[in-house]
Amino acid sequence: MPATAVFRTAIAPEWVDYNGHLRDAYYMLILSFATDALMDRLGLDAAYRERARCTLYTLEAHIHYLQEVKQTDVAEVCVRILAADAKRIHAGLELHCERHTGPAALAEVMLLHVHQGEKVTAMPFPPAVSDAIGRLHEETAGLPVPEPGSRRMELRPRP
Amino acid sequence: MPATAVFRTAIAPEWVDYNGHLRDAYYMLILSFATDALMDRLGLDAAYRERARCTLYTLEAHIHYLQEVKQTDVAEVCVRILAADAKRIHAGLELHCERHTGPAALAEVMLLHVHQGEKVTAMPFPPAVSDAIGRLHEETAGLPVPEPGSRRMELRPRP
Repeated sequence: MPATAVFRTAIAPEWVDYNGHLRDAYYMLILSFATDALMDRLGLDAAYRERARCTLYTLEAHIHYLQEVKQTDVAEVCVRILAADAKRIHAGLELHCERHTGPAALAEVMLLHVHQGEKVTAMPFPPAVSDAIGRLHEETAGLPVPEPGSRRMELRPRP
Repeated sequence: MPATAVFRTAIAPEWVDYNGHLRDAYYMLILSFATDALMDRLGLDAAYRERARCTLYTLEAHIHYLQEVKQTDVAEVCVRILAADAKRIHAGLELHCERHTGPAALAEVMLLHVHQGEKVTAMPFPPAVSDAIGRLHEETAGLPVPEPGSRRMELRPRP
């Protein structure tokens, strides 16, 4: 697994749809589990969430489906930090399968750190988490950003 | 249900995550089921798929998460056609719950009509399907397009 890989999973049979491949939403489920793994890596794990009553909410997600994933594949997700501020992480996620040379899907997610009290309020990351985000950002900053990234979706003329 | 509603579902307990609400990927699963319902409405149903060996592949999806959905909610999805050409549909999807006045999520998807032969090839819609897409496009063209739509994802400064 590359250094930036955070999650690896087999494909559950119930994730395969009538088209004979991984249903679009289950690509997102694998990416969602990968985001959980990223949270563990950054110190936003279950113990932290319980103690601080803080967690990450997904604000936005944009995914490009590039290759079919079959039931016999194993999916691996690599992550990079594209940007971050005091409360938010903009992460890039790549879903890979050995069968394909390029990524099977590319996604970007925007994550917000919140406190779940009587109401849900945005909350700055604690310093140790900010440091961990900064380190991962530095580690992944030099990697080429795969195209197409997030962009306005529209019907573009095709050759 | 509004005229453009195509799908309605209760929230399965296993769709709720450690944050106490619908996991991000399961919003997408509900939207994916709604896309199946849209296909039925357009004549791209199971019988068509079997007969023609044609189906829709999702090329791209962009979702904004606006409200938490709880296990006690019922989700309803409205659809509109934002654009279409001979082989592609650009659809807008809104996920609503009665508890919230506005949508709980907004999404856009780009769908491609393909033939699943020895290899998968893009294929024009049959005329009856193109007509059905055109009619739904006309019916929904006048509806206000909710903001924010699909756009390049980036960390924008917050007030």
